[in-house]
Amino acid sequence: MEAYSIGIDLGGTNLRAAAIDKDGKMLAKISGNTPVASGPGPVVDDMAQSVEKLREQFGREHLAGIGAGVPGNIDMAKGVIVGWGNMPIFNGYAMRDELSNRLGTKVILENDANAAALGEQWIGAGRGVDDLVLLTLGTGVGGGIIVDGRILHGQIGMAGELGHMTVSPNGYPCGCGNRGCLEKHASATAVSAMARLLNLGHDLTGKQVYDLAVQGNDRAREIFKAMGEALGIALASLINIFNFPLYLLGGGVVAAWELFAPAMLAEVDRRCFTYRSTLKIAPTRIEAAKLGGDAGLYGAAYLPLQDVRR
Amino acid sequence: MEAYSIGIDLGGTNLRAAAIDKDGKMLAKISGNTPVASGPGPVVDDMAQSVEKLREQFGREHLAGIGAGVPGNIDMAKGVIVGWGNMPIFNGYAMRDELSNRLGTKVILENDANAAALGEQWIGAGRGVDDLVLLTLGTGVGGGIIVDGRILHGQIGMAGELGHMTVSPNGYPCGCGNRGCLEKHASATAVSAMARLLNLGHDLTGKQVYDLAVQGNDRAREIFKAMGEALGIALASLINIFNFPLYLLGGGVVAAWELFAPAMLAEVDRRCFTYRSTLKIAPTRIEAAKLGGDAGLYGAAYLPLQDVRR
Repeated sequence: MEAYSIGIDLGGTNLRAAAIDKDGKMLAKISGNTPVASGPGPVVDDMAQSVEKLREQFGREHLAGIGAGVPGNIDMAKGVIVGWGNMPIFNGYAMRDELSNRLGTKVILENDANAAALGEQWIGAGRGVDDLVLLTLGTGVGGGIIVDGRILHGQIGMAGELGHMTVSPNGYPCGCGNRGCLEKHASATAVSAMARLLNLGHDLTGKQVYDLAVQGNDRAREIFKAMGEALGIALASLINIFNFPLYLLGGGVVAAWELFAPAMLAEVDRRCFTYRSTLKIAPTRIEAAKLGGDAGLYGAAYLPLQDVRR
Repeated sequence: MEAYSIGIDLGGTNLRAAAIDKDGKMLAKISGNTPVASGPGPVVDDMAQSVEKLREQFGREHLAGIGAGVPGNIDMAKGVIVGWGNMPIFNGYAMRDELSNRLGTKVILENDANAAALGEQWIGAGRGVDDLVLLTLGTGVGGGIIVDGRILHGQIGMAGELGHMTVSPNGYPCGCGNRGCLEKHASATAVSAMARLLNLGHDLTGKQVYDLAVQGNDRAREIFKAMGEALGIALASLINIFNFPLYLLGGGVVAAWELFAPAMLAEVDRRCFTYRSTLKIAPTRIEAAKLGGDAGLYGAAYLPLQDVRR
């Protein structure tokens, strides 16, 4: 058989792993059993066991490598997790080498939002595009930046923290210390908070607010409009900064595309001369990502394949 | 003698050209005679004549190449100027090929703010650093982004329009169509406008406002504080986006560093968790550029040398 690789996506609750061939075909996908909250040791055991299962099934001789996406910031040179906001038990953990030692082979560790951007570029909505930005709208807002087909890491792997771009300098406080971060305006959490502010309900999920909006509730519709405007402010700056051909929006909240996208695109058009002035010569596309929850899994698997290709 | 190259910096009024050797030593600098407002034909004649002068002086056999920085946006693939805000007579002009034909040799055309960033990276405040952002605070605010030692161009050379990042979503209108662009808050023009708003004077230059501030005028000092805060908002977002080791501020307004920098750095510290959390492991430097008005000249000259080196 052809070469394949194994990608791991360590989510907020547990892990998934998949064997994916060099053309981006998913051969098998499995889930781990260990809650992430169990801490580094048990989680890395679970990662190693998941890889073993897939490696036995598809053979060692064709395995190009192993990539793992995790929700924290990673010191790329050292393979150490340097910041995982709500799971500090992992901070300072040398996950790359621990996993590599258990498996007896090289592992590439990556931030999960970066891996998702790479996955979309490889086999999703960014196929054929070398430069793109992915915003992942979930509980928070993650980001990944692809330059010339490679993930932009910055000094220690912390590039792409796009959820903490300022869209409202005196807006709501964010856990990061800033005010008016994008993710306080354009995440599932933000949608729920706005629903509460508008007396729509105390504990509505983003999906419930979406359903209300679809049913015609004006306040619910206004929430998604506000979200679209915030995204437009951030995207206008990003387009002026990068002049990339493609900006993708992924994550669960993108299901509400038809509710927030019109306000978002209007805001970009109004605020971004780069967007307007290139419309006819080199248009900027702003589109929904395609790989859904598997983007990070594809991207993690692509990491070792990408190195083989070069 | 050693290899050298010729850099041209086409400013808002006229051009300068310099012969610079491969170690960054400026061998000679001359100014052109033709006002830029004369339009493309006369200006390119002037550029060609300036190059000829230097080429005769230092010899054709050692000339590595010719680079030219211009204040407009450039379609890099075609070498055509696609947007030069206040000099629309140049829009659509194939400056690269016109100059190349006159000189009988290859020319590399570049945006001047991008060239300045490359110059600082080569031989200025960014020496030894592969990834940096330069903000040039002049009449407006220009930007250049260096990734892995190369200028980030984006689709058609419009990357780095950092002066049009939004720092105040409902702030003053900008000619670009946006509200609250960075350059409406942190340029010489912005300083003059704020002086007028504070009844300091109708037609004060940035330098005059600076002098008032140095003399202890509270309103003048507040202007530079406001400018520092706006820069801090933009820098916090840029650091979260890039996680680069170095952010440089160039341009004439940087002379007021001691007046705006404290507010700027306080704002970055407060707003940017990437900045704070990397302080001890991989600090982010925010510093004044070093090459002054010659940054673009050095960068333009480096363009052909850089290609020879690879």
